[in-house]
Amino acid sequence: MKQDRRKVSNCRYTIGVDFGGTFVKLALVRFWEKGFRIEGFSSFETKNYNKDALIEQMVIRIIKLKAESTYKGNRVRGVGIGVPGRVDFDKGIVFDLTNVSGWKNVNLKDALQPKVKIPVLVDNDANLMALAESKFGAAKGHKDCICVTMGTGIGGGIILNHKVYRGISFAAGEIGHMTINENGPLCICGGKGCVERYIGNRYILEEAIRRLRGGAKSSVRAKLNGRYSNLTLEMLNSAARKKDPFSILIWQEVGKHMGAVLANVVNLLNPEIIVVGGGVAKAGALFLEPMRRIVKERAFQVSCRNLKIVASKFSNKAGIIGAAALVLANKEKK
Amino acid sequence: MKQDRRKVSNCRYTIGVDFGGTFVKLALVRFWEKGFRIEGFSSFETKNYNKDALIEQMVIRIIKLKAESTYKGNRVRGVGIGVPGRVDFDKGIVFDLTNVSGWKNVNLKDALQPKVKIPVLVDNDANLMALAESKFGAAKGHKDCICVTMGTGIGGGIILNHKVYRGISFAAGEIGHMTINENGPLCICGGKGCVERYIGNRYILEEAIRRLRGGAKSSVRAKLNGRYSNLTLEMLNSAARKKDPFSILIWQEVGKHMGAVLANVVNLLNPEIIVVGGGVAKAGALFLEPMRRIVKERAFQVSCRNLKIVASKFSNKAGIIGAAALVLANKEKK
Repeated sequence: MKQDRRKVSNCRYTIGVDFGGTFVKLALVRFWEKGFRIEGFSSFETKNYNKDALIEQMVIRIIKLKAESTYKGNRVRGVGIGVPGRVDFDKGIVFDLTNVSGWKNVNLKDALQPKVKIPVLVDNDANLMALAESKFGAAKGHKDCICVTMGTGIGGGIILNHKVYRGISFAAGEIGHMTINENGPLCICGGKGCVERYIGNRYILEEAIRRLRGGAKSSVRAKLNGRYSNLTLEMLNSAARKKDPFSILIWQEVGKHMGAVLANVVNLLNPEIIVVGGGVAKAGALFLEPMRRIVKERAFQVSCRNLKIVASKFSNKAGIIGAAALVLANKEKK
Repeated sequence: MKQDRRKVSNCRYTIGVDFGGTFVKLALVRFWEKGFRIEGFSSFETKNYNKDALIEQMVIRIIKLKAESTYKGNRVRGVGIGVPGRVDFDKGIVFDLTNVSGWKNVNLKDALQPKVKIPVLVDNDANLMALAESKFGAAKGHKDCICVTMGTGIGGGIILNHKVYRGISFAAGEIGHMTINENGPLCICGGKGCVERYIGNRYILEEAIRRLRGGAKSSVRAKLNGRYSNLTLEMLNSAARKKDPFSILIWQEVGKHMGAVLANVVNLLNPEIIVVGGGVAKAGALFLEPMRRIVKERAFQVSCRNLKIVASKFSNKAGIIGAAALVLANKEKK
């Protein structure tokens, strides 16, 4: 009985917001010692709102979620928000967003905090995914963790000593823009041979289409209705699972390139665990196995011996969980 | 008068040992708030002693330096030792040494501590150089710092939040073995296209000799006495300073390769400052300028804006200062 009471008093409520290019998702999350539960949820389409209207929507929905918690007699400790772009974490300024226009140098913390009347923290989404995996997911129990998200872009979050490592300009973790070929093709970032330039979504497709145009045999060809631009990663994924050698090779090469860049990360940081998530990660073992093999081949043996490379536990929920967890992580820091 | 007394009481003595492939150097170091002074020094040639005899020599000389301090009425807080190899920092085990045979899995801490009767800490030499530069040298006042040493090999030390970052197997910082060409030449580490494979001392010379053999014009040719193997980095350095285009190009290319790998480090860690030291660093601006330019070209602008890339302050003394400082750094941690 006594223990039950303690458990209840150890519960902490926060609100997590995953501000994505397509949807803004908000959740009231209850945390206890080693777990969490989403107890309220709300979402809206990003593209329907300009900047000010979107902030207004956030305020309305945060206040509503806060009220749900108050109804249950619990105080909400704060709001954590993850955004797809670089953020001044200390001040709460969003510098710029990928795929959402009109968000240059916006102080989102100052815009929200006076209205929602609880502390607001803003961070980069990849950092928060890493935090979620580190606190409750695939890297739970590990002190350090590198989290990679593979999708349109290749992002990364770094957890060192249980905390998000952000770098001096809040720009750390750009694993996608580490080069694997000094004289490789030019990347949108200005660098050359960045790994994202090889295995960001569109580049995987571009390379597959180039080979198909060149006459390569593949079962995906039948699904294109004569248009190469109809090719999707899902087609390559499903064909590879059905043993299409063309598609299997594509995924092996994705794993090979990613393995080369992760070997760099391993030699530099000697981490305990690397968590791989994002859309591309759905191809799972198709590229995870070749990737693990390449990391072992290329990186220092001693750094590979205790290294785990695992798929993320939370797929599309990582952002919201990480955002909610940020409020508590930050309190612990102080 | 009162302030003077406080200053004296703030002084702390430690012993630093730089266990190198050629010399073992030992120093009694006095630290105060923001500075240090070497107050006793001793050294011997590494190759004259086998493992046990070398440990014995260390004991004798540490006790002697300790006595010098006691004579002055000051207690020595401990001994820090830097070695050229990987070390289990927690236990004080030397796993292996580069260029010194007979040192596999030696618990140097346990071998010394009962005899010298003060705490002994053992760490990798690149970590300790980074610590020295971070506490008192080129990176003084910066929270995070990446330190690169360019010589026979290319090593690195990482300071995060004023502390050495070692990784889970004490193997972090292997900047020399980050790849700049996924399909590049095989490196002794097992990787491919590691930056050390291009600009470790012997590879710089190999490349220069290859070009000379191929008929390249250069003022260094006159100094070779007909033998290409007589070529040294000092010759290339001095010729470049006298405007020999061949030698200038060699150093520019060293800077270019190093710049590509540092751009990777910058995109991953977004550090405030990078300190470059080691033998090759003597070529100074000859490669530092091209290197800085390439980092700016390749890495994220925002991460370059506040980034400093500077030459190390302590050249061959960094090891001993870092070793001595380790004793205090470790006390602060606890």
